[in-house]
Amino acid sequence: MSASPETAKTAGATPAADALEARFRRVSAVEGALGVLSWDRLVMMPPGGGDARAEQSATLGVIAHELLTAPEVAEQLAAATDEDLSGWRAANLAEMRRRHAHATALPSALVEAMSRASAKSEAAWRAARAESDFGGVRGPLGEVLRLTREVASAKAAALGLEPYAALLDQYEPGGSVPRIEALFAELEAALPPILDAVLERQARAGEPTLPTGPFPAPAQRGLARDIMTTLGFDFTHGRLDETLHPFCGGVPDDVRVTTRFSETGFVSGVMGVIHETGHALYERGLPAEWRGLPVGEARGMVLHESQSLLMEMQACRSPAFLGHLSAMARTAFGGDGAAWEPDNLRRIYTRVERGLIRVEADEVTYPLHVILRTRLERALLAGDLAVGDLPGAWGEGMRDLLGVTPPDDARGCLQDIHWYDGAVGYFPTYTLGSLAAAQLFGAAVAADPGIPEAIGRGDFTRLLAWLRPNVHERASSATTDEILTAATGAKLGAQAFLAHLKRRYLGG
Amino acid sequence: MSASPETAKTAGATPAADALEARFRRVSAVEGALGVLSWDRLVMMPPGGGDARAEQSATLGVIAHELLTAPEVAEQLAAATDEDLSGWRAANLAEMRRRHAHATALPSALVEAMSRASAKSEAAWRAARAESDFGGVRGPLGEVLRLTREVASAKAAALGLEPYAALLDQYEPGGSVPRIEALFAELEAALPPILDAVLERQARAGEPTLPTGPFPAPAQRGLARDIMTTLGFDFTHGRLDETLHPFCGGVPDDVRVTTRFSETGFVSGVMGVIHETGHALYERGLPAEWRGLPVGEARGMVLHESQSLLMEMQACRSPAFLGHLSAMARTAFGGDGAAWEPDNLRRIYTRVERGLIRVEADEVTYPLHVILRTRLERALLAGDLAVGDLPGAWGEGMRDLLGVTPPDDARGCLQDIHWYDGAVGYFPTYTLGSLAAAQLFGAAVAADPGIPEAIGRGDFTRLLAWLRPNVHERASSATTDEILTAATGAKLGAQAFLAHLKRRYLGG
Repeated sequence: MSASPETAKTAGATPAADALEARFRRVSAVEGALGVLSWDRLVMMPPGGGDARAEQSATLGVIAHELLTAPEVAEQLAAATDEDLSGWRAANLAEMRRRHAHATALPSALVEAMSRASAKSEAAWRAARAESDFGGVRGPLGEVLRLTREVASAKAAALGLEPYAALLDQYEPGGSVPRIEALFAELEAALPPILDAVLERQARAGEPTLPTGPFPAPAQRGLARDIMTTLGFDFTHGRLDETLHPFCGGVPDDVRVTTRFSETGFVSGVMGVIHETGHALYERGLPAEWRGLPVGEARGMVLHESQSLLMEMQACRSPAFLGHLSAMARTAFGGDGAAWEPDNLRRIYTRVERGLIRVEADEVTYPLHVILRTRLERALLAGDLAVGDLPGAWGEGMRDLLGVTPPDDARGCLQDIHWYDGAVGYFPTYTLGSLAAAQLFGAAVAADPGIPEAIGRGDFTRLLAWLRPNVHERASSATTDEILTAATGAKLGAQAFLAHLKRRYLGG
Repeated sequence: MSASPETAKTAGATPAADALEARFRRVSAVEGALGVLSWDRLVMMPPGGGDARAEQSATLGVIAHELLTAPEVAEQLAAATDEDLSGWRAANLAEMRRRHAHATALPSALVEAMSRASAKSEAAWRAARAESDFGGVRGPLGEVLRLTREVASAKAAALGLEPYAALLDQYEPGGSVPRIEALFAELEAALPPILDAVLERQARAGEPTLPTGPFPAPAQRGLARDIMTTLGFDFTHGRLDETLHPFCGGVPDDVRVTTRFSETGFVSGVMGVIHETGHALYERGLPAEWRGLPVGEARGMVLHESQSLLMEMQACRSPAFLGHLSAMARTAFGGDGAAWEPDNLRRIYTRVERGLIRVEADEVTYPLHVILRTRLERALLAGDLAVGDLPGAWGEGMRDLLGVTPPDDARGCLQDIHWYDGAVGYFPTYTLGSLAAAQLFGAAVAADPGIPEAIGRGDFTRLLAWLRPNVHERASSATTDEILTAATGAKLGAQAFLAHLKRRYLGG
């Protein structure tokens, strides 16, 4: 499957493969339309448009599903043998098979029931979180989990995987549960002593000073756009808008990044923009000649998250870039004084704490939040943990792993939307992405030692010149591990990440 | 077909009708998605997103067309006999038949050829207009017209209509060519003497004074939103944005109005917003219980244009409303002095001239622009006018009808996109809409004589209370003439419009 890029025209073909490719291009166009509708819903849509939009999106979802599951697809997949295809087209056939297997695994009644139960549970979760009362969503979550077990078992049978692996495969194709167990065990052993040492060192150094404002929204918007351009974002193929929850959506030729600006500072807003820009650069860098086909899509959530975290954690929290950011921020806000100095910014952006909230966590503690969620979702799926016991198990896990106790459910098991929205098997990809980010950035710098200095000058072209052929342009032509091995010399591992933490936080 | 409103649930049904309704709801959801994609393309999309968007829209267009033309639709339409249905469901069946007839009339090769030729011709038109050189688009337009003749003849055969009537039917279902001929002959006879008299009277009164700025964009935006709210636009179900060419798009529960603001004044921007808001109020007022079915859609372009022109020309160019607008504009811009007086605004907003450009025309001369276009497009379609002779025929017509000579093609036959984009048969609806607007507004005021005074206070609820049941909520449950007859006591005619012009411009 590890093939070198080539265009569809030069590769071999069979009539069945041609028919399949035409069909999948159509699916891709429908999914692209769904992406725009989803962006519009979150960014532009007036509240009263919700019902009509739900109808539009549901209809397009059903149409895409019908295109994937039509009886002739199975026949064509059987007729299109890999031997007649080479390289990328063979990889594309494998991806079409995988998508077909996922789509046909579930009876449509189960898809519908799951969709209804998730919508109900998500709404209940919003209310429960606002009141910090897990009791309000316990029943709906139980129903979502019951159906998730059915989904997992149906997909497991279709894909020849264990149930949890079948769910994981939706987000990270080929993701291996034993590998996750081994990597997470390594992190769980290594991180607590690192965390202790970092906190001790940090306490000795004292608190950094937060720059004071004002931070007018237009200036923040301008700074965000300047940073995106610096990183390589092309505004002729994308937009920046504002939403409550930042995300990266759209399609590769029209990537839509969103962020939010806080009136009290630029610190977290800037890193949010950088994170989403990392996702955007990956999408934009996917090979144009395979647009619209499964093989041309992003490999999975691990590499996707690796690209956002490579920018946010590896490149842009580096002392070199923070010096550049310090100058950009001073210009944007007219800031002056010690709080704006590069070293103070570095201390702000590498602050570590035993926190309660995953999305606010630093890179040292973040994996512990993920390890807890992975452990709990596996227990919930297996039926080893009853829904009613979730708040208790959450508190116990937080004490175990992070040494803190959530004072309420809102800051405990109600903080993340994932499970309530029916997404089980997603959490591990955040931390696998952190590991991949460290590994890839290390390999990039080894291949081109001038990268850190260039980043310090706000020149990301050298970093991007390495990421394009080694990650972005490989799309789904190979597995995550094949891409990582070709790019870094090793499969996904924890060592580069742990070494990075020691270097950055312990000077080791 | 003229039935009173009722809900789908209480009406009779047949299995075939049920299946058809489910299918048409699906078509409607796909078309709604297309509406959002189209709005996004014109308002939000970065330029580099064009190819991907074209692919998405073309795919959804093909899917909608396939849904309409699937073999079982013809069988179900044959099985669903009107006798088993009552009122609105019978009207809905008739609308489904009409849409099916239009969709199946054309072989898909012709649809594709037309789509390609229009895209090519539209692009050539943009370049030709920029250089004011008709020669640059003559060939592409010839090809579009050749294909348009094929389309007209195929639809004519399918619908049992003359070719031009078959094209008109796409925009104004049931529109009658002899009626248009008679009405336009009446206008062509009546308007020139009115125009002479108005211009003479206007010359005696002297020029109005244009208010001077500044007119900052945020203030114009705020004023536009206030005016929209005054007219009854509900921002929980819609948006206002800015584009080069104002339009009203979206779906009834999420109506998207656009406008543009000129830095030199608010005069034309305000009326543009009012015009599009008239369209938006019609869409928003369509009966919610028939959402997603053909019978629940706007009747056609004549009533649609009547709703925008009723607001723009009848209600909001009235002296009563211009007094209210004067106060709103003064507040928005801090304006002061004679130029801001209601009577000066009235003179600005009722200025008449023998102009070259349709979209800038006043309500007295506008029909003459439309009469010319209708005459020319019928001659082009019939082959009585060669494409190469169009610029000459245009100039001759302008001299005949308006007494002016276009100095170049840009201000002549290149000014409108319609023909170059493949839209023949659309132009008459503008003027039929003007006639209907005058007739409807007259009937509204006759039914509730308090309406003008209420409008003068910025209270449009009484006008809307009449329009809702008499126009908006009737949707496509009856023909345009049936709706007009029920609402005004007469079929579409020119008398109310001509009387309105004499009253407003000649004090008669």
